Amino acid sequence: MHGPRPTLEAVAAHAGVSRATVSRVVNGGAGVRKALRDRVQAAVAELGYVPNSAARSLVTRRTGAVAVVIAEPETRVFSDPFFAQQLRGISRELSACDTQLLLLLLEGRTDYDRIGRYLAGGHVDGALMFSLHRDDPLPSMAAVSGLPTVFGGRPGWPGAETDPDLLYVDTDNRGGARQAVEHLLERGRRRIAVITGPLDQTSAQDRLDGYLDALGVTEADPALVAHGDFTAEGGERAMAELLDRSPDLDAVFAGSDLMASGALRTLRARGRRVPEDIAVVGYDDLEPAAWADPALTTVRQDVQEMGRMMAGLLLRRLGLGADGAPREEPPAPVVTPARLIVRDSS
Amino acid sequence: MHGPRPTLEAVAAHAGVSRATVSRVVNGGAGVRKALRDRVQAAVAELGYVPNSAARSLVTRRTGAVAVVIAEPETRVFSDPFFAQQLRGISRELSACDTQLLLLLLEGRTDYDRIGRYLAGGHVDGALMFSLHRDDPLPSMAAVSGLPTVFGGRPGWPGAETDPDLLYVDTDNRGGARQAVEHLLERGRRRIAVITGPLDQTSAQDRLDGYLDALGVTEADPALVAHGDFTAEGGERAMAELLDRSPDLDAVFAGSDLMASGALRTLRARGRRVPEDIAVVGYDDLEPAAWADPALTTVRQDVQEMGRMMAGLLLRRLGLGADGAPREEPPAPVVTPARLIVRDSS
Repeated sequence: MHGPRPTLEAVAAHAGVSRATVSRVVNGGAGVRKALRDRVQAAVAELGYVPNSAARSLVTRRTGAVAVVIAEPETRVFSDPFFAQQLRGISRELSACDTQLLLLLLEGRTDYDRIGRYLAGGHVDGALMFSLHRDDPLPSMAAVSGLPTVFGGRPGWPGAETDPDLLYVDTDNRGGARQAVEHLLERGRRRIAVITGPLDQTSAQDRLDGYLDALGVTEADPALVAHGDFTAEGGERAMAELLDRSPDLDAVFAGSDLMASGALRTLRARGRRVPEDIAVVGYDDLEPAAWADPALTTVRQDVQEMGRMMAGLLLRRLGLGADGAPREEPPAPVVTPARLIVRDSS
Repeated sequence: MHGPRPTLEAVAAHAGVSRATVSRVVNGGAGVRKALRDRVQAAVAELGYVPNSAARSLVTRRTGAVAVVIAEPETRVFSDPFFAQQLRGISRELSACDTQLLLLLLEGRTDYDRIGRYLAGGHVDGALMFSLHRDDPLPSMAAVSGLPTVFGGRPGWPGAETDPDLLYVDTDNRGGARQAVEHLLERGRRRIAVITGPLDQTSAQDRLDGYLDALGVTEADPALVAHGDFTAEGGERAMAELLDRSPDLDAVFAGSDLMASGALRTLRARGRRVPEDIAVVGYDDLEPAAWADPALTTVRQDVQEMGRMMAGLLLRRLGLGADGAPREEPPAPVVTPARLIVRDSS
């Protein structure tokens, strides 16, 4: 069963034709008489020959595969439902276009060289990258290699804003955060703290800006800001810091549901009632929001749909659509809306 | 930034040499004078040329990449910490050997054709496959293509037992389950039910066999067996069925921590105290066991280490080791031990 793969030469010998004829039949059959084509195809079937894609992609210049790179250690990729949702959308869209999704896992920065070589090496037709940080080397690796790439989240690195070729799918993070904090103000909350994600990501910075917008200020009260890292543990720590610094706070807006669930844990441990003593609002509307006790008020972004759109943009840049037909309109960045979902925690 | 990638021809023109010379330099430089080699390398650097791996792998017959296929819909891949742990072990081992991990996501059976073509297409040096079901088409796809493959879990398809070439990493599921049920007997439990995983997977069947071993029977009392699917929802449903059929049961052994956590939910909803009324034991010792309330007695298998071993076996079959040197000893299947961890639920 594990014998060597039959070669083009073996097929040629079996069919009694030249290597070139087999090659022509395997790559579409143009210019080969039907009788000869049938003979080659019978030999291919009989030997179980599979054309080597390395050889074939030299001809077609397409691999039929797309790389997905999440610029986070795989521990985070698998513990944050955000990535699962985004991958689900991507997977469905690529699948519909018969394109293979390859998820490239990385442990840390030491893996970047290898990933850069892989992306530049002609193994894939394009790449989808998300959760990039401002100083991430991946975008320039992709740019240097000329690999068509679509980003998840608005790129924030120097020069990104003026690059007309960048394709990305973002959501209205600033508007969503503004809605969240306006809602807390309407409920009569006056000392509203914020737990931010990593501020070298535009999503985290935009959500902080929306918080400031709603409060009508340009700078935050340092006693009311704590930094998390988009994880539950980060939210837990940040909430503890905030309570130590500002014991009189009456609300907190967390930049992700995972951080909000960590904040709820700290509040429970400290004996603070939610929402009676302190109202909590999260961001994402993923599983942790529904599981939270009390159920979490949050801002919904359709993460799966954003994944689908990323894949769709890339397929169009590659001249393909989910229906297999080339599309006319040139692909352009997309920003999806965000919407407050009020539950029990506020 | 997104211009076309420089070609071999462009490098040849820039350096004023032939295509063949550039190719020879790029593939190691054997038989090319140093002066000429330097000139080509300068042109490569200046133009930012990256050799196309498709072309290069025709020469070296290696891609530097390994595919990982989990034979489950991606929704399960991302909701079961078992897979995250196994991937972590695989990722670290491959990374240490400078080999790129490609996780191939699939939505369902309709994606198998495409994955089969990808695996057969020369894109990867080998494959790691896990969570296979008895009738899964993936193993024969890999065998037909001659792709070196290592399986996670003992293969259970017809003919697998007598195939001396199969490589896999398994754990002592039967012995682990036996320990779990013997522990319940020692605690004085007499009506012990079992929640099984999908019985077309050897891990689930072996755990059921270990349950029977401990009870000293060859067939289970049908009133005490319910089938889950290795998910929390499956465990929730199975526990409800068991309580309806056998309201007097005093213990349950669940074939995975996720199913045990679902069973705990049902017991709480039905007002049964754990462990006072009903003792619960899980399997895996992953996060859900520690998070469970009460903390779950379970059987520990070192899932991350099993992932590492799978990658290690494949690298050795490919003639590589984590140290980059070929190893002498031929690779062989591995079965790791399982160990009962007693906590509060029993």
